[in-house]
Amino acid sequence: MKKQDTKNEGGPGGEGYMHGLAIDAVIFGFHDQQLKVLLMQYKKTGVFALPGGFIREKENLNEAAKRVVSVRTGLSNIYLEQFYVFGDYARYDPQTMKAVMMANNLTPEDNHWLLQRFISVGYYALVDFTKVVPMPDQIFDGCDWYELNCIPQLMQDHNLIVQKALEALRSGLDNKLVAFNLMPTEFTMGDLQILYETILGKKLLRPAFQRKMLGLGILERIAKRWTGGAHKAPYLYRFK
Amino acid sequence: MKKQDTKNEGGPGGEGYMHGLAIDAVIFGFHDQQLKVLLMQYKKTGVFALPGGFIREKENLNEAAKRVVSVRTGLSNIYLEQFYVFGDYARYDPQTMKAVMMANNLTPEDNHWLLQRFISVGYYALVDFTKVVPMPDQIFDGCDWYELNCIPQLMQDHNLIVQKALEALRSGLDNKLVAFNLMPTEFTMGDLQILYETILGKKLLRPAFQRKMLGLGILERIAKRWTGGAHKAPYLYRFK
Repeated sequence: MKKQDTKNEGGPGGEGYMHGLAIDAVIFGFHDQQLKVLLMQYKKTGVFALPGGFIREKENLNEAAKRVVSVRTGLSNIYLEQFYVFGDYARYDPQTMKAVMMANNLTPEDNHWLLQRFISVGYYALVDFTKVVPMPDQIFDGCDWYELNCIPQLMQDHNLIVQKALEALRSGLDNKLVAFNLMPTEFTMGDLQILYETILGKKLLRPAFQRKMLGLGILERIAKRWTGGAHKAPYLYRFK
Repeated sequence: MKKQDTKNEGGPGGEGYMHGLAIDAVIFGFHDQQLKVLLMQYKKTGVFALPGGFIREKENLNEAAKRVVSVRTGLSNIYLEQFYVFGDYARYDPQTMKAVMMANNLTPEDNHWLLQRFISVGYYALVDFTKVVPMPDQIFDGCDWYELNCIPQLMQDHNLIVQKALEALRSGLDNKLVAFNLMPTEFTMGDLQILYETILGKKLLRPAFQRKMLGLGILERIAKRWTGGAHKAPYLYRFK
């Protein structure tokens, strides 16, 4: 099979994809005190995987990642971050991919581009999961939110990809807090602490947390206070 | 040209490389109060570029990066970090690559794999440049250290790659200080401050610097003091 032929498979309007390179997206969903991750399930095979995709021949890598996430979540303009490239040879697993294709009535030749080795660029995003209606496509029959501590066995090295994404999210949270756009316009220090505790997966001490957050220089205290309760109302903050 | 044929070009012992994906290495060199970067120059064309290479078909991505850096510097076991993937379509520049190949008496067909689009994984390293003898190869006639403020125009987006690597080096310095292995076994706070000031490209205030470094919890103060001078000798430190 000639290269030109295989490249035109699967591309909308005949546009092909770059071979050997994929994108895997770890889309974290936060709301209240829950942190979840978006997973796909391939039809009939029961194989779970991260949402992912390929790069069109003339498409910027970062644009391809936005497109992949937008298709699954319906959200555009969300903050996406490259965090690691997964390139071990051991992640190459053509058998699983072939089984998935066969289950969808495709009978690929052994040199089909989807059965070749892929190196995958990992991206993560953090969204409010109540604003998302997960979208499967014709080869997936499931696209749903899973609790972080209930993630099933995923294909290839996707469990590792989730773990690495979580580390990147946790270590970069201070710098990306505003970009993630997960807080209401005005919020209390307690609201913010819940976000941190949920993402970090541990309780924090209020005085140290408050000191650190104020030290970041991104919060502005608003004069207005809540007046509903009998107790002293907490201050409200907004991002500068 | 069939895919199999092109893949076997350029690979030692007939082993091919993955297409469409490259590695670019920003190798920073530090010594005394100087920070430099290792650049290559293509024969005859005068084109400057970062040292780089490709991933063998069964090679792990990170191993390929180590190999690329080892070949140019003679150093193995140095700390290498992935920092960004450069995947804009606009970086695709087959004309320059073709000119370089022609200057080396190669006349590639237009669909030669080296003339296709590449996405490049950026790695950076930080080494002591006095320990390195830069190694060119048969298609480069220069491989030398350049001062950071004297970097020439580089091919494709390599100037941007250097800039992004510098940002990554600066923002991650605290966490990788021990791994970079650039300090002697015992050193003064002043020695360490010079390393930071050189890499960050700015002067730091001693009390704040000392407070921060001690706060990282990676330094151990040694009882021994210098006895040579008339003035109070500085404390010596080592990494825990």
